[in-house]
Amino acid sequence: MKYYSDCLNRLVTQLSMLPGIGQKTAERLAYYIVKLPKERSTALADAIRDASANVSYCKMCYCTSDTDTCPICASKNRNHRVIMVVETDDDLAQMERSGAYDGVYHVLQGAIDLMKGIGPNDIRMKELITRLRGEVDEVILATSASMEGETTATYISRLIKPTGIKVTQLAYGIPMGADIQTVDSATLERAFRNRGSM
Amino acid sequence: MKYYSDCLNRLVTQLSMLPGIGQKTAERLAYYIVKLPKERSTALADAIRDASANVSYCKMCYCTSDTDTCPICASKNRNHRVIMVVETDDDLAQMERSGAYDGVYHVLQGAIDLMKGIGPNDIRMKELITRLRGEVDEVILATSASMEGETTATYISRLIKPTGIKVTQLAYGIPMGADIQTVDSATLERAFRNRGSM
Repeated sequence: MKYYSDCLNRLVTQLSMLPGIGQKTAERLAYYIVKLPKERSTALADAIRDASANVSYCKMCYCTSDTDTCPICASKNRNHRVIMVVETDDDLAQMERSGAYDGVYHVLQGAIDLMKGIGPNDIRMKELITRLRGEVDEVILATSASMEGETTATYISRLIKPTGIKVTQLAYGIPMGADIQTVDSATLERAFRNRGSM
Repeated sequence: MKYYSDCLNRLVTQLSMLPGIGQKTAERLAYYIVKLPKERSTALADAIRDASANVSYCKMCYCTSDTDTCPICASKNRNHRVIMVVETDDDLAQMERSGAYDGVYHVLQGAIDLMKGIGPNDIRMKELITRLRGEVDEVILATSASMEGETTATYISRLIKPTGIKVTQLAYGIPMGADIQTVDSATLERAFRNRGSM
């Protein structure tokens, strides 16, 4: 039987439609949210509404942003002659967390997936090509290590090479802290091929 | 550097204050939410606002509810002479999912935790005692198997016994599907003590 009432039920339904949130987590979150002080739950609802109303894409790198130009593209402290190509906003966020990179990005908002009928025109590929007409020293491919990511990387690489712009790709290899015995064969094979001198 | 803009930042902050949602999950959810069609994100924001505005506690069992009497307490198909005592709404939800129980509940909204200064008066204990003045055949203790849960169960059990009402407790033992070698000693010891004839 339905053991919670209408409002709660609606909140659980809404929450459980979010990615990675199942029925149980949605219930736990719903019980938590309704017990928050009213100003806290209102702040959450408002943040959702405002972000949804104001956010679109950065006109430079096509990351999700509520300003025409995102903070990274607008920054004078970033090297605008180096462009890292990623598939999603999450990939950008993860790279920023590493703190290793000071160039700018191009967010494809997807990857080429011919099985699903997603071609270069369905992602932000044209916009990338347009950007390359400016002053660019290097394009770093940081698409994921999946079939789609590799296809996308190969496509971009072939497209750019004739222009003379340097194209590189993030290194594949054994993740830091991993035991060799737990690393899969495909990764080990890559790590072997990409071995460096000491 | 801050790599997303104000609206997104506020949404990420709000989401990451929810239990079990860290910075990375909050970012993933935020990116997902802002890309939803406007009516979907509005529905989510409204659900939060409405639930937060309307929900309080069931006047019978003190579960979180937006009606004076929750669906379970209002149902004629439940046995109102059997009361299962749980600590939280989540515990109630989990028991309902099992489908094993057709009585009603009493949600303490906490457990006795003397280390944290939470005594019987800080949870819905008085309300339980009041309910026991009605027609009750059995009280089933379903507090958690922690120090606090056990303390609470013992407290309630001692309180009820003089009244002559039957008091039982959920069985402790080996979880279904578990290998003996993976079961902890405390559980095995309980399972041995509670062994039944075949």
